[in-house]
Amino acid sequence: MVHLKEDERLDYLLAENLRIIQSPSVFAFSLDAVLLARFVYVPIQKGNLIDLCSGNGVVPLFLSARTKGQITGVEIQTRLYDMAVRSIEYNRLEQQLQMIHGDIKDMPKQLGHGKFDVVTCNPPYFTTASKEEINPNEHLAIARHEILCTLEDAVKASSQLAKQGGKVAFVHRPGRLLDIITLMRQYRLEPKRIQFVYPKIGKEANTLLIEAIKDGSPDLKIAPPLFVYNENNEYTPEIREILYGES
Amino acid sequence: MVHLKEDERLDYLLAENLRIIQSPSVFAFSLDAVLLARFVYVPIQKGNLIDLCSGNGVVPLFLSARTKGQITGVEIQTRLYDMAVRSIEYNRLEQQLQMIHGDIKDMPKQLGHGKFDVVTCNPPYFTTASKEEINPNEHLAIARHEILCTLEDAVKASSQLAKQGGKVAFVHRPGRLLDIITLMRQYRLEPKRIQFVYPKIGKEANTLLIEAIKDGSPDLKIAPPLFVYNENNEYTPEIREILYGES
Repeated sequence: MVHLKEDERLDYLLAENLRIIQSPSVFAFSLDAVLLARFVYVPIQKGNLIDLCSGNGVVPLFLSARTKGQITGVEIQTRLYDMAVRSIEYNRLEQQLQMIHGDIKDMPKQLGHGKFDVVTCNPPYFTTASKEEINPNEHLAIARHEILCTLEDAVKASSQLAKQGGKVAFVHRPGRLLDIITLMRQYRLEPKRIQFVYPKIGKEANTLLIEAIKDGSPDLKIAPPLFVYNENNEYTPEIREILYGES
Repeated sequence: MVHLKEDERLDYLLAENLRIIQSPSVFAFSLDAVLLARFVYVPIQKGNLIDLCSGNGVVPLFLSARTKGQITGVEIQTRLYDMAVRSIEYNRLEQQLQMIHGDIKDMPKQLGHGKFDVVTCNPPYFTTASKEEINPNEHLAIARHEILCTLEDAVKASSQLAKQGGKVAFVHRPGRLLDIITLMRQYRLEPKRIQFVYPKIGKEANTLLIEAIKDGSPDLKIAPPLFVYNENNEYTPEIREILYGES
């Protein structure tokens, strides 16, 4: 049983009956969040994982299909936090998944420094521009613009939360590659693996996945490219497998 | 007519009868140099271009097929400089191509600051390691290791030689992405375009092409990926086109 509010829907995640509450007017997860949840290294049997800027909990929900470890999600918007909590209850994942309603900047103090094996974050992509450019829908504006959380806030909090040797993975736009790399190194996160996502063959990348290790040694690898659509504008087999568990 | 010394060969470049002197024991150009010469932006009708760490002149020779501008190559090793000069003469390109025998670090003083529209560089890839690890063949060691020229030397000289708004393009290993980006920004070169080269589908990138603009504004694009071999270990059509001018 689940209580759906207003225009919320109960959407499928993966083939394995995972479901998620979404709402077009408040928040619907993007492919980027799914790609992040599948890109990041995860310990399979145990470990502490935390997802920052969780929105409706899509990354924690996806991660629960990949690890038996404990997963915490942090979301500052009440409405999204509430959606995530109800999705977790619907999927009966309360033993493994926990949502925190709060500001990611407070988490290192609240949860402790260096306690997590894995930190993920799909932060707002856009720097805060003029009022006219920002979405008048406050929920969407906060999720998309660096209003309550800058990229530096997110990288700093991630570094503080990660153990030495812990993994920190972000998804962002390729245009922010230089910023994200500079900030990661500034906060002792050494980028180790980058994957670029291209909408289709012959197009520029539109998404960047990056994984760093806290206090890691420099040795960056560029993973094979990922293409989202084939020439007929259908999802590629790789993406279908990620989204639906089809192979 | 061309005078070939010792084990030198006169190899073909492109379909258009461009030829280049090579020697297995001294220097033979790599695919990376060819990719750099084709990756970089070039003004078609005129302009001043300079190639640093030119080796046997492969990048200037390839560039001559793309632009009517004046091209200067700089090489510190006498033997390679001499090969480049003879290749230019053989191809009767003396009016367009000029080689300088010297140290790239001296070029800004010798040629003037801010005089070039385009700077290219295929620098030595390996930081100078222990003597045992370095190739005992001095020619190859100098071409491959940062013995006479570090990455910072190359980036600094490139920035000094480039005009405001001029293009600077490097080819390097993906493992040095963070260093090259950091150094470029340190020397007022804003990375604008990166292309990763993958040996084949499903493999990690093994080559990085990067183009920056002197005093440019931040706006990085990740160009479509380039694959060298297909599943049958044959060159892909893209690479054949670059190497042989076939389409």
